[in-house]
Amino acid sequence: MAGLDQAPPPARITLVLGGARSGKSAHAEALLDDCAGPRLYIATAEARDAEMEARIAAHRARRGPGWRTVEAPLALAETLEAESRPGSALLVDCLTLWLSNLMEAGRDIAAETQRLVACLGRLEGRTVLVSNEVGLGIVPENAAARTFRDHAGRLNQAVAQAAGRVVFVAAGLPMTLKP
Amino acid sequence: MAGLDQAPPPARITLVLGGARSGKSAHAEALLDDCAGPRLYIATAEARDAEMEARIAAHRARRGPGWRTVEAPLALAETLEAESRPGSALLVDCLTLWLSNLMEAGRDIAAETQRLVACLGRLEGRTVLVSNEVGLGIVPENAAARTFRDHAGRLNQAVAQAAGRVVFVAAGLPMTLKP
Amino acid sequence: MAGLDQAPPPARITLVLGGARSGKSAHAEALLDDCAGPRLYIATAEARDAEMEARIAAHRARRGPGWRTVEAPLALAETLEAESRPGSALLVDCLTLWLSNLMEAGRDIAAETQRLVACLGRLEGRTVLVSNEVGLGIVPENAAARTFRDHAGRLNQAVAQAAGRVVFVAAGLPMTLKP
Repeated sequence: MAGLDQAPPPARITLVLGGARSGKSAHAEALLDDCAGPRLYIATAEARDAEMEARIAAHRARRGPGWRTVEAPLALAETLEAESRPGSALLVDCLTLWLSNLMEAGRDIAAETQRLVACLGRLEGRTVLVSNEVGLGIVPENAAARTFRDHAGRLNQAVAQAAGRVVFVAAGLPMTLKP
Repeated sequence: MAGLDQAPPPARITLVLGGARSGKSAHAEALLDDCAGPRLYIATAEARDAEMEARIAAHRARRGPGWRTVEAPLALAETLEAESRPGSALLVDCLTLWLSNLMEAGRDIAAETQRLVACLGRLEGRTVLVSNEVGLGIVPENAAARTFRDHAGRLNQAVAQAAGRVVFVAAGLPMTLKP
Repeated sequence: MAGLDQAPPPARITLVLGGARSGKSAHAEALLDDCAGPRLYIATAEARDAEMEARIAAHRARRGPGWRTVEAPLALAETLEAESRPGSALLVDCLTLWLSNLMEAGRDIAAETQRLVACLGRLEGRTVLVSNEVGLGIVPENAAARTFRDHAGRLNQAVAQAAGRVVFVAAGLPMTLKP
């Protein structure tokens, strides 16, 4: 039982799932604290309004130096493939915003999900992906919101299956879903 | 501590709780994979619109053969009592739709919850019940939605107390609430 | 491994997190069942309409005797400091209603959160705080609701960090977030 007292080896692909303001981004960043080399933050958000701008600035301030940032509102798989190499550390924040961008751009969500999952299997460095759990409230009255949460749930399931480790973060604290 | 490495014995009554598109139905079906005999899918959904029809068809396609289906939009306790016997395997999908049907039919929810729980105690075969967790979002503005989530929360608590095993599914992965 | 079979020592500060009708209040009360002395229920709710009045009455009836009740819609830190002493047992139900009262009163939420957390560190008796997780649904269309769930998420994170034990309750069953 000695293993219970030791940290598990870092998974190559980790999914960090959580609610709004659950501390999931901070937890995801901390998972890459032990990386020797530079870390890359892959932002799927675009600063299109003041609310979003403030959130992006707050995230950027917390990460501090040691992080490089690239934006990938749509071309997530391409960015991951271009940036991942042995020893690299990538953080994608977050999959639900990426999904939202894909839907707005009229993309085929099932095909994009499949492309992302296929790409994850080929990455050689460490990758942490952050995603929102959005399916634990009342059924939304808005049909677009229902479609979004259906896609988000399927995307989370597909990435969770491809990941070596999955954690669910609530109130800043992780519960392990896949060890 | 050898038991940690062994699967637990199948509980007679299992509750599978989860959000929308969390993979809870697939997980519930997999719990009955080891059954030798025929399995019965007890559907509480009625195909009243195209969205619901598509969901029912997708679920049915995934289950494949080896499953028989009956509909029980309201008479759930009666159906369970009629179908359960030693060696049988029943899957109820899902309790939240049943609750929604009961509310629409003007039934007494507390009494129906009590009848269901009493019936669960008498079943001789294995039964897996699927239910949605709907209380983890913002308080709904709609009063009917607030009443629904109150009823759903109480129903989940009552069935969880009657069940031998309870799991919470997120992104297709189970967390054990009651081992 | 003997410790696995023993209940942990009661934490001085415990946060009980859960959804609507998840059984979090009953679980929080049960955590104080082993207290020898009188227990104090610190209600943040004000009975302003019939729905809220009914909820308060139901909670009060369940607790039964052995509990004293005080109301603290806004002055939570002051009430905790005034009432806590070695051997005392306080239950705060709930932080999300307190937050809602603070927002309505135009208070500075970050400052109030900080005051609460600082006060928790000074309490000498046992304190159980109940809070709602509200960030696991679809992004609310209403801007005030978005602000509320942002504040609630940050408040839960801050209190979880200050607490010795954190549990997440679903369907009446606790999952340990911080042991």
